[in-house]
Amino acid sequence: MDQHIIDRLREIVGDENVRTTTAELYAYSTDAGIHRSMPDAVLRPKITEEVAAVVKLANELLFPVVPRGAGTALCGHCVPVAGGVVMDLQRMNVIKELHIEDLYVVVEPGVIHKDLNAKLKEYGFFIPGPSSGNVANIGGMVATNASGGNAVKYGATRDYVLGMEVVLPTGEIARFGSRTLKNSAGYQLEKLMCGMEGTLGVITEVNLRITPLPEATAVAVAVFETLEDAGRCVSNIIAYPVIPSGLELMSRVCIEAVNKAVCLGLPDEEAILLIEVDGSSHDVKGQIEKVTDVCKRSGSLSVDFTFDAERKEELWKGRKAMIPALSKYHDDLVTVMLADDMAVPMSKVPEAVKAFQAISDKYDIIIASYGHSGDGNLHTKVLMDPTRQSHWDQAEKAVSEIYEKVMDLGGTITGEHGVGMTKAPFFLKERESSLGVMKVIKKGLDPNNIMNPYKIMDWEENFIARLRYHVENE
Amino acid sequence: MDQHIIDRLREIVGDENVRTTTAELYAYSTDAGIHRSMPDAVLRPKITEEVAAVVKLANELLFPVVPRGAGTALCGHCVPVAGGVVMDLQRMNVIKELHIEDLYVVVEPGVIHKDLNAKLKEYGFFIPGPSSGNVANIGGMVATNASGGNAVKYGATRDYVLGMEVVLPTGEIARFGSRTLKNSAGYQLEKLMCGMEGTLGVITEVNLRITPLPEATAVAVAVFETLEDAGRCVSNIIAYPVIPSGLELMSRVCIEAVNKAVCLGLPDEEAILLIEVDGSSHDVKGQIEKVTDVCKRSGSLSVDFTFDAERKEELWKGRKAMIPALSKYHDDLVTVMLADDMAVPMSKVPEAVKAFQAISDKYDIIIASYGHSGDGNLHTKVLMDPTRQSHWDQAEKAVSEIYEKVMDLGGTITGEHGVGMTKAPFFLKERESSLGVMKVIKKGLDPNNIMNPYKIMDWEENFIARLRYHVENE
Repeated sequence: MDQHIIDRLREIVGDENVRTTTAELYAYSTDAGIHRSMPDAVLRPKITEEVAAVVKLANELLFPVVPRGAGTALCGHCVPVAGGVVMDLQRMNVIKELHIEDLYVVVEPGVIHKDLNAKLKEYGFFIPGPSSGNVANIGGMVATNASGGNAVKYGATRDYVLGMEVVLPTGEIARFGSRTLKNSAGYQLEKLMCGMEGTLGVITEVNLRITPLPEATAVAVAVFETLEDAGRCVSNIIAYPVIPSGLELMSRVCIEAVNKAVCLGLPDEEAILLIEVDGSSHDVKGQIEKVTDVCKRSGSLSVDFTFDAERKEELWKGRKAMIPALSKYHDDLVTVMLADDMAVPMSKVPEAVKAFQAISDKYDIIIASYGHSGDGNLHTKVLMDPTRQSHWDQAEKAVSEIYEKVMDLGGTITGEHGVGMTKAPFFLKERESSLGVMKVIKKGLDPNNIMNPYKIMDWEENFIARLRYHVENE
Repeated sequence: MDQHIIDRLREIVGDENVRTTTAELYAYSTDAGIHRSMPDAVLRPKITEEVAAVVKLANELLFPVVPRGAGTALCGHCVPVAGGVVMDLQRMNVIKELHIEDLYVVVEPGVIHKDLNAKLKEYGFFIPGPSSGNVANIGGMVATNASGGNAVKYGATRDYVLGMEVVLPTGEIARFGSRTLKNSAGYQLEKLMCGMEGTLGVITEVNLRITPLPEATAVAVAVFETLEDAGRCVSNIIAYPVIPSGLELMSRVCIEAVNKAVCLGLPDEEAILLIEVDGSSHDVKGQIEKVTDVCKRSGSLSVDFTFDAERKEELWKGRKAMIPALSKYHDDLVTVMLADDMAVPMSKVPEAVKAFQAISDKYDIIIASYGHSGDGNLHTKVLMDPTRQSHWDQAEKAVSEIYEKVMDLGGTITGEHGVGMTKAPFFLKERESSLGVMKVIKKGLDPNNIMNPYKIMDWEENFIARLRYHVENE
């Protein structure tokens, strides 16, 4: 990148907010996934007008702009594969307006999910989000339509977005949506933006719906002899109907890993369901009784429930410790983020988990499956030695088969993390029939392809080859 | 329309499903609103392939296609203003798949909302929708992002759309979204389509999330001396927090009209709130006690509540009888659908209603205001003599001022009905900054402007003048 561009960027956002040292560029060359590519500069704008001026310049001089929050994405969403500018939005972190009685807030994209919820808690409200909410930014959550384990009851981020301000790829500032809980005023652009991963513009402000915190919660732990039994139990709970606020399935590898890492003392069986219900105190009691009843009727080996805050925390801590726990599962292997968040219709979860196990056996590679079973979201982690080419080859084949199976089951390759780079080749297959429309929108709004280029669907054969080179030589 | 086009259409959908008699064309020349324009032909396709073939032909020979369900829209959405073909989708009325344990169904667009809910009721589930649900079709509900009085708790149609099949303006068949409760796979096109009002294609199949029916409901009736008191009470209920499943505000004109028409015996005061809560039986008791408490603390003149099924039905019947009741309010005047469904942030409802009253006085025209106060949605009906030019002039001025006020209050000109024709001129103002993006999408997907042309935003000065002529000479 020419020095004169850097100089113009310094004029826009201020000297101290343009970083170009190798160390800083390296820090911004990756997210929490496996891809890496160096940007030419890192910018830290503070206001919408700065963002707009940068994007306008980029569209004039044709350099890429990659917006980024905390960088917790797992699929290379904010990796600047074509160089250019990484735009770190974490300084735009103001909770601008609280309208509790109108059930919405207005925030900047760099607000941390946890911080927003801490503020809302004072009023008895919250906004659901991903497990990474302690660091994840609202802007990134919106741009990837992030969600977590309570989505079965509370929905995903898109369901909370009422409106937003966006800097378009031309540098124009647009407003989508509304401040009202509902609107029917034309195309729902604010919803379209949920999942665009920075490819259609930079989100500079969001209006979000809020929802009341539940008064109480309870957690049941049900143990099953087979994955099928656990799966049937999930279907029976939902059809009862009880809609849990969390419903997690752990298979044997995960149970062993968690027990080993955090001594949770979970029974050593094929499958465990963690089932959380929430609501008013009385309601929770009624729901947990129904859940217990359904578990027994569905053939659980044992089922216990607890209202005890300490035990509940311990159980969820075990579940949340899954990724680090899996890393410790085998001394020579590490977890690699491939096929990280497929989703299938809930009743297909047991079939999916079993198929993943068979694929794992076939390629002689350890694949741990667990997931937000309540909304059909499945996580797998591949345990491998990333310095061995043969492991990459096995993993690649295994992951391809896993994705094929997910699509066969009517599922999606990504339930809550987004496409980024890792999943792009499979995305092209899953969304073949809607790709044309996505391209029309991308091309129409970003004719010069400056906004987070080569992400989601914007792939060429060559580019995939280059990407594999990146990954394999990491 | 040339006979040879009609012949080709007959080949595609069958002779009996192409209607061209004047009586039939007249029947399809309007919806439930004030606009009227004759189509050249009415088609009744049965399967997606027929729809696709018709649209492909239209895109080749350049005639307009206007998709339509039951025609309950109030703003001219499915009026064929530029002639062409009205495509009545009511024969595509199959509930194709029920996946109760996966919390979704797959339906054709012509399925009636009431029929779907009757089926779902067998399993203890439902999908919320508009007051017109007894006749409204799912396709139309999706295309307008329709909703009703329970949206404050249950959301709008867009919140239930998981995926869909769409015939694009080129005649291609595309699939958007998924069968899973969540997906992060690229642009959320299935949500973009909610509100497109047939301008981006024909929806031929929809995957919809379902939600459990509440066990019990209760309704409170609270009477207030002023609209402000009622409004403050709404804010206090929400902030408590209690999220009611219905929260309706009735102002004096409406109370009088309803009492006169259906002898409901409502107290003759400035404002009444109907507040419905739902949930488990025990939970409902707790919530209604909180609501009663809040009403008293907010200065209600009286507050009563009922669990009695008969009384609850009577109260809602009164509320639902509002439009016919208003029609009987004055012997020489009829209600005209202008400014029919604005939404403002909930706490602004009293200010909005008072402003509407002042505008009504200023132009010496009766405007009745009522609304789903719980989600800030306000309905006004203009009572006028549509044969008098002076009434149209007054109404036009009054309505313009009402919309200006709504926009000043941070609201939207349409919360649940859509834009169609009636609101298009005001929509252009409200959505000025997002219009460019909507036009890029419309032009990109429908370069020949064949899908429901001249709706929502696709306006020219001349066209508005022609439209006014239509309306005024009705």
